[in-house]
Amino acid sequence: MADADQLLRNAPRGADLVRLVVARVVDGGDAFSSLDAIRAVTPADIEKILHPQTTSSTGRVVATGLGASPGVASGVAVFDTWRALDADDDGQDVILVRADTSPADDPALAVAVGVLTSRGGLTSHAAVVARGRGLPAVCGADSVRIGDTGFTTVDGVVVSEGDVISIDGSTGEVFLGSLVVDDDEVPPELDLLLGWADELRAGRLAVRANADTPADAALARAFGAEGIGLCRTEHLFLGPDRLPLVQRIILADGPDAEAAALSELHRVQRADFVELLEAMDGLPVTVRLLDLPLHEFLPDRSQLEVADARDGLDAEGVELLAATRRWHEHNPMLGVRGVRLAVLKPDVYRMQVRALVEAAVDRLDAGGTPRVQVMVPLVATAAELVLARSWIDDEVGAVLGQRAGELTVRVGAMVETPRAALRAGELAAVADFLSFGTNDLTQMTFGFSRDDVGRMLAAYLDQGLLPADPFATLDVDGVGELVTGGIDRARAAHAGLEIGVCGEHGGDPDSIAFFLAAGLDYVSCSPFRVPIARLAAARAVLAV
Amino acid sequence: MADADQLLRNAPRGADLVRLVVARVVDGGDAFSSLDAIRAVTPADIEKILHPQTTSSTGRVVATGLGASPGVASGVAVFDTWRALDADDDGQDVILVRADTSPADDPALAVAVGVLTSRGGLTSHAAVVARGRGLPAVCGADSVRIGDTGFTTVDGVVVSEGDVISIDGSTGEVFLGSLVVDDDEVPPELDLLLGWADELRAGRLAVRANADTPADAALARAFGAEGIGLCRTEHLFLGPDRLPLVQRIILADGPDAEAAALSELHRVQRADFVELLEAMDGLPVTVRLLDLPLHEFLPDRSQLEVADARDGLDAEGVELLAATRRWHEHNPMLGVRGVRLAVLKPDVYRMQVRALVEAAVDRLDAGGTPRVQVMVPLVATAAELVLARSWIDDEVGAVLGQRAGELTVRVGAMVETPRAALRAGELAAVADFLSFGTNDLTQMTFGFSRDDVGRMLAAYLDQGLLPADPFATLDVDGVGELVTGGIDRARAAHAGLEIGVCGEHGGDPDSIAFFLAAGLDYVSCSPFRVPIARLAAARAVLAV
Repeated sequence: MADADQLLRNAPRGADLVRLVVARVVDGGDAFSSLDAIRAVTPADIEKILHPQTTSSTGRVVATGLGASPGVASGVAVFDTWRALDADDDGQDVILVRADTSPADDPALAVAVGVLTSRGGLTSHAAVVARGRGLPAVCGADSVRIGDTGFTTVDGVVVSEGDVISIDGSTGEVFLGSLVVDDDEVPPELDLLLGWADELRAGRLAVRANADTPADAALARAFGAEGIGLCRTEHLFLGPDRLPLVQRIILADGPDAEAAALSELHRVQRADFVELLEAMDGLPVTVRLLDLPLHEFLPDRSQLEVADARDGLDAEGVELLAATRRWHEHNPMLGVRGVRLAVLKPDVYRMQVRALVEAAVDRLDAGGTPRVQVMVPLVATAAELVLARSWIDDEVGAVLGQRAGELTVRVGAMVETPRAALRAGELAAVADFLSFGTNDLTQMTFGFSRDDVGRMLAAYLDQGLLPADPFATLDVDGVGELVTGGIDRARAAHAGLEIGVCGEHGGDPDSIAFFLAAGLDYVSCSPFRVPIARLAAARAVLAV
Repeated sequence: MADADQLLRNAPRGADLVRLVVARVVDGGDAFSSLDAIRAVTPADIEKILHPQTTSSTGRVVATGLGASPGVASGVAVFDTWRALDADDDGQDVILVRADTSPADDPALAVAVGVLTSRGGLTSHAAVVARGRGLPAVCGADSVRIGDTGFTTVDGVVVSEGDVISIDGSTGEVFLGSLVVDDDEVPPELDLLLGWADELRAGRLAVRANADTPADAALARAFGAEGIGLCRTEHLFLGPDRLPLVQRIILADGPDAEAAALSELHRVQRADFVELLEAMDGLPVTVRLLDLPLHEFLPDRSQLEVADARDGLDAEGVELLAATRRWHEHNPMLGVRGVRLAVLKPDVYRMQVRALVEAAVDRLDAGGTPRVQVMVPLVATAAELVLARSWIDDEVGAVLGQRAGELTVRVGAMVETPRAALRAGELAAVADFLSFGTNDLTQMTFGFSRDDVGRMLAAYLDQGLLPADPFATLDVDGVGELVTGGIDRARAAHAGLEIGVCGEHGGDPDSIAFFLAAGLDYVSCSPFRVPIARLAAARAVLAV
């Protein structure tokens, strides 16, 4: 091994390293085993392969906004519609970056591969147009100051026109460098290496993906995901054909108007779920019921007020403004969303369950093998889960009827409030699975709003007040204690309960080692991090 | 005892009961002891005495806004300036209730005993005028819909013109009925009874008050408070002569401008602290360093944007709008405030410590006995407290110099993030005291924004999803576990450490029983709840 170590220290990294170590194992000429190969290749090597053009080795997140239209896009940042058209003519992939967009920007949106804005929400012009075109979009990244020729992040990172950036329209993240996989760069040996890694971690820690759309699901599967650990159904509500229906539900002046809009939404949701289950046929698909607060589906209150002051509003505008005021929240992160909104408006959630189970029946009829898990978000008390489960089970029973034996719908909860972790035993007693949502759990345990603490995070890291960004690498001392304590309580109440994690920590190697040691069954992360998680899990098994 | 029980069941409550039981003890004619008296009188009896005109027995909180100008006021709700003047002519105490106020309302503000608004922040017209007049004010209670002749709360409570309401301008609470003590109603026997209660709880659980101003402190002391457990220094920043200084600090274009504004603020803070220490001479005064985020000191962003759209803004307005955008936060509860802001802007916090210690020296020179405790808010990591303590100790040393032996300034932290409770051992190692801030701890543990979950709380209580409002009575199962776990860790690391609680739960009888059992040294509550807490603590000692 000493010679091998010597060799590896001098060896190249990334694709070359993977080729080298796999060849040595396959060659069989020395004692170098597949375990040695897994020890030799680091998660950073996989990142290097998957993100070949990344300017930093970690695909650094420099800002976060709203995931306004799913998908990942990489390209050159361009700050002006006409220059975007020029760059497109030159054959470049363009990410249009604007404070906000208007119809004047439509020509640029028509050629761009992605869009990033600092103002506006999920119903802004950029968000709606992007979803209509299937264009990845991050909107309202308001920690970023966008000018005519560049933007500056709160950390002082400056991006100028022509710099390559990437956006993830599911998570709302903005990266320096490229995230797009260049297939030529991925050595075929990688599959072999990850296969060995899979054997090693089999039965110890599964890797699922956070995927919101059929396209995401297919990508995740190609990267080796063993199911979907988190489908955020918000994105299925935001399509240009759905958003008006959601707004009609919010504005409905009576049960009939609400029921009519719900019924149309039900039809499109069912079709969405059929495609999603098809893409992941045979593997578990965990669908999180609606998590967003209602005001996210309405226009920005302040923009409506300004429009009102400037030109007055039409009747619809007046109605929308009243609704934005009615549903306005001081701290949306801690507001009426998830299961709380389900208590106030159960019909929307019942509709989602019905659409999902009907889609599963459609898949059964088509000869598929749907594996459905319904996940209730933002639970803080066991009574909430008992209530939600009662009407979920109702809907499942009503749809399946005589066919109940053909499909098992599992019902579980996200553990993302500190209280849910503290009371995990009670939750486990009425759940078929639990999944730690470590993004929100980190926000609430520290009292850090991810959208707001960006302005202080650099100072905290510089002054040693935090060892690492707790949203990137799990805070083992604090949040980790809630995770391990929650697992212990849950398994004591419900032996063998499936427990996973679906925060972004699920794709972070250091956090994965912690999750394996803590006894989780699976991690779930964004599709692009699935290969990294597969290797990291195997290395954690080896305790590398 | 059976006879006494029989008698008591038929006995009147409130003041009559207190007179009766105290007379029996003093009379000494039967075996009825002071302990029996404490067993016989409930906290609800004390509430009945202290809040004689309350329409419900609990002085029910029906809404919460921003505590915009401290003090408690009770009066008839009036919704129009001219009718307010009429009601005042009729000799009524008037609470002016308006969506917002403008200079046209100044005549009403000049005669009102308090003001409640549903719009606007701490810098709104109503807030600024109220502080200028020393008038209690609650502003921005936006869960309340205020019309021309009444208002409706999210719970559906309707208050019409002429109904008696009360406001607490420190906590932002709005109550049905009156909170004002009518001295004629308080039987002199109450002092005797509470004295027996004090003997019983002595050395077990002290009762301090949350008091922000010298007047609050004097009131609390008259009610028997044994010190201040929480002085929110925000209110010392918001006076009409201070707010412009704070805004100058925020808008300062360089260190010189900032230093000049800080120096003026320092002068007025020092004078404030002298008065506060004088009112509590000889008793501990716990001063929480600035906790609010900066945008709370700026005008409302949306109102500035509307004004800009309507008429344009002057140069100052443009500057203020830019600042409100720069400091805007999505979730202020989880944002850059408390110790986080101290890391970014340490000079403001250093100034507060300097002003406080100088005030204590002034009191020493005047022959007083100041007992100063400096409390660092919103700590999530021990490193934050180590850093804050380093410059607090610096400032204390610089002010005291040769006189260091004359004054001990104790430095501690609030435990209000779940993480602080989980890591209380590390905090305790570098703290002279800890104080649980159970309001914020409840918000973060449940993920409930107190400002936002009002719309669902009624449904939650109706449907049995919560046994009680967790902001009124401590959630023993969840938040309570963080409290007991935090105490255990803290005392294991620092034997004998003083630990208290300064959330509003400190005045709730059920919560007090829990805090006593958990081993806390003191509770701190609003001045009006001090007598209730004194009795409740004694009853908890008796395990009634």
